[in-house]
Amino acid sequence: MPIPHGVHQQRVDDVNAQLGAAGMDALFVQGPSSDLQYLLGITREPHNPTDDNKYGDAIYGALLAPGRAPALLVPRMGAAAHVASALAGSPWQDCITVIGDGVLSQLEDPVAVTRRALAAAGNPRRLGVIARQWARGMFSLQAAAPGIELSDAGPLLAKMRMIKDEHEIALMRRAAAVTERAFAAVLPQLDLGVTAQEIAQEIDRLFLRFGATGPSFHTGIRITGPSVVDLPFAGRKVGDTPIQPGCVISFDLGAVVDGYASDFGRTVFWGEARPDIVRLHDAIMASQAAAILAMRSGQITAAGLNGVARRVIEEAGFGDGFTHRLGHGIGIDVHEEPFLFPGDDTTLESGMCFTVEPSIRLPGLAGVRVEDVVMVTPKGGDSLHSFSRELLVMG
Amino acid sequence: MPIPHGVHQQRVDDVNAQLGAAGMDALFVQGPSSDLQYLLGITREPHNPTDDNKYGDAIYGALLAPGRAPALLVPRMGAAAHVASALAGSPWQDCITVIGDGVLSQLEDPVAVTRRALAAAGNPRRLGVIARQWARGMFSLQAAAPGIELSDAGPLLAKMRMIKDEHEIALMRRAAAVTERAFAAVLPQLDLGVTAQEIAQEIDRLFLRFGATGPSFHTGIRITGPSVVDLPFAGRKVGDTPIQPGCVISFDLGAVVDGYASDFGRTVFWGEARPDIVRLHDAIMASQAAAILAMRSGQITAAGLNGVARRVIEEAGFGDGFTHRLGHGIGIDVHEEPFLFPGDDTTLESGMCFTVEPSIRLPGLAGVRVEDVVMVTPKGGDSLHSFSRELLVMG
Repeated sequence: MPIPHGVHQQRVDDVNAQLGAAGMDALFVQGPSSDLQYLLGITREPHNPTDDNKYGDAIYGALLAPGRAPALLVPRMGAAAHVASALAGSPWQDCITVIGDGVLSQLEDPVAVTRRALAAAGNPRRLGVIARQWARGMFSLQAAAPGIELSDAGPLLAKMRMIKDEHEIALMRRAAAVTERAFAAVLPQLDLGVTAQEIAQEIDRLFLRFGATGPSFHTGIRITGPSVVDLPFAGRKVGDTPIQPGCVISFDLGAVVDGYASDFGRTVFWGEARPDIVRLHDAIMASQAAAILAMRSGQITAAGLNGVARRVIEEAGFGDGFTHRLGHGIGIDVHEEPFLFPGDDTTLESGMCFTVEPSIRLPGLAGVRVEDVVMVTPKGGDSLHSFSRELLVMG
Repeated sequence: MPIPHGVHQQRVDDVNAQLGAAGMDALFVQGPSSDLQYLLGITREPHNPTDDNKYGDAIYGALLAPGRAPALLVPRMGAAAHVASALAGSPWQDCITVIGDGVLSQLEDPVAVTRRALAAAGNPRRLGVIARQWARGMFSLQAAAPGIELSDAGPLLAKMRMIKDEHEIALMRRAAAVTERAFAAVLPQLDLGVTAQEIAQEIDRLFLRFGATGPSFHTGIRITGPSVVDLPFAGRKVGDTPIQPGCVISFDLGAVVDGYASDFGRTVFWGEARPDIVRLHDAIMASQAAAILAMRSGQITAAGLNGVARRVIEEAGFGDGFTHRLGHGIGIDVHEEPFLFPGDDTTLESGMCFTVEPSIRLPGLAGVRVEDVVMVTPKGGDSLHSFSRELLVMG
């Protein structure tokens, strides 16, 4: 059950209503992007691991202007069919202009196509663009309308996307459930000699099997321990380290379901629960619990929440091993605003969803982590996850 | 054997030498990007499937200016360790400024960091940016240096990257070899009931096993045939269609090895080689052969080569089933300039590498494809692949 078109219509109306106050006559929303998905329901296909480039993709996107229907400029190859399918049954199914690439249609100049679209939108002089709009597209817009003033619509869209509505929360709960189901299904497959890479691949396979479109980020499996060669914990690449006696396996995984992301973590102790490593686990559990309790709407900032969690770990003596922010907003993207770190003074509001993911890595000992997606409520955090956070000992 | 630092030094010198004529005083190369890899050897980790965002990433990149050492601005979390490792032993290992995020270091304002870097580079007034530079970073640059003039360095970099040198060709041959090895290893695993999704996952596993860092694009497996429900051929998602009697399996796969991409395709007939489908295969083979012969440096344009291949398929009566461009440049990215389609009049030169990938899909019948990466030489195309292009019949 994807988001209904009526919800997207309301979001388009809302953003159009805010453009004037933000100093913009219109907004160009480059695709594929999470902003285009948020506003019009056009989901992304996953990025290729290296850049693909198709004719017309520099101006792929939607032009929104108050009082007008959105205009969609779409490359024929690679996007036209996807956009038509995403917009079927929507108020915008007739708003698509396919950019001819000369293969089975006439070759068209993207700048000329852009100029016509801008004219049809009333020749806006002040145009907002999204945070990840490509420079190439900005130069095309300037070529189509010399003197057009481009400005940053990123903060406006980030603010709208921070608060999740009931439809979004329902999808995020489903993404969380699929993620947990994959985790539960991979646990019985763990065994001595199974490598981190194999575990990650099996999780990705299970995501597809259980109805996800794929992972929301590169599945992270770290196998550490006093006798295991230590790997950088922050890196995204998964190594070939095998499960071995006395090791600690930390999991970081999340599925995308109907365009919404999850991000979840637990730690497994293999063979034994060494007291010195259990102390790390106790510290991150206490840190996470303190943070979740403090996630009351209107009562704390993103930076303040980071401080609550960090203090618990510092007081346990492991502050140097907690090297990253406490967490991040999550929704269509795995990392979105606000961010739980010292530089973000956003006040937490009901409907915001964050990862709460303290971790400790002590080189030469082990790395442990726990992570839930948690929604802010007036009474404190409500985790979207139900999987036990207790110590997992296997093997 | 990655590209030696001395080659990167030469590329930096070359691009700096061209900035003036392009109307630029300096160049900002956002990371992670293929342009940053090309110039400084900082490889990308693969994009996450949804967007990640880390503090300082809006100004992650290298500032290049003639007569000065590059300055690297790098977010602490997620990039600092990777960049330091990539630049170890290079002339630039001391040119890194890590942007403090307040977690284990002081919190720094990215705009202030940018302003200092621009001042150290002589306060350039005209700054080039790469094609996929984010708008967010452009607004940060403008905030750091009001009135700074940003312009499009995309064409300059694309032109440099078109011609592959001996180091690049060696890596592309290795990527091609790993890709073929995975294809050869997956063929004996094909069987009735094995699904497209399972084949794709096995190929991705084999890529890692054989030394690739992963696929260069989403591995594409299409199972079609007169009695098989037809799937859109252009889409990137892999379905759950199983191998069944009389089906046709088209493969589209490519590995990344030491930062260089491959892209390769063959078609397998399962159980029988139906004459009406064999005719499609004959047509794409003839089309590809004609194109490869015509890839003589200085003798043909990208658009002209597309025409050579298309004419063969049109004359065989299947023009409507060949719905895409003949191919694309390939190197660090899976799709890079020039593009083999009617809108690109670049003359082919020695050292350019292209995919040559005619395909025909006739709805209700089948989809067939063949694809090699081919290098332009004075005497015609030199395929980087050695795998047979003959009809493959299995089952």
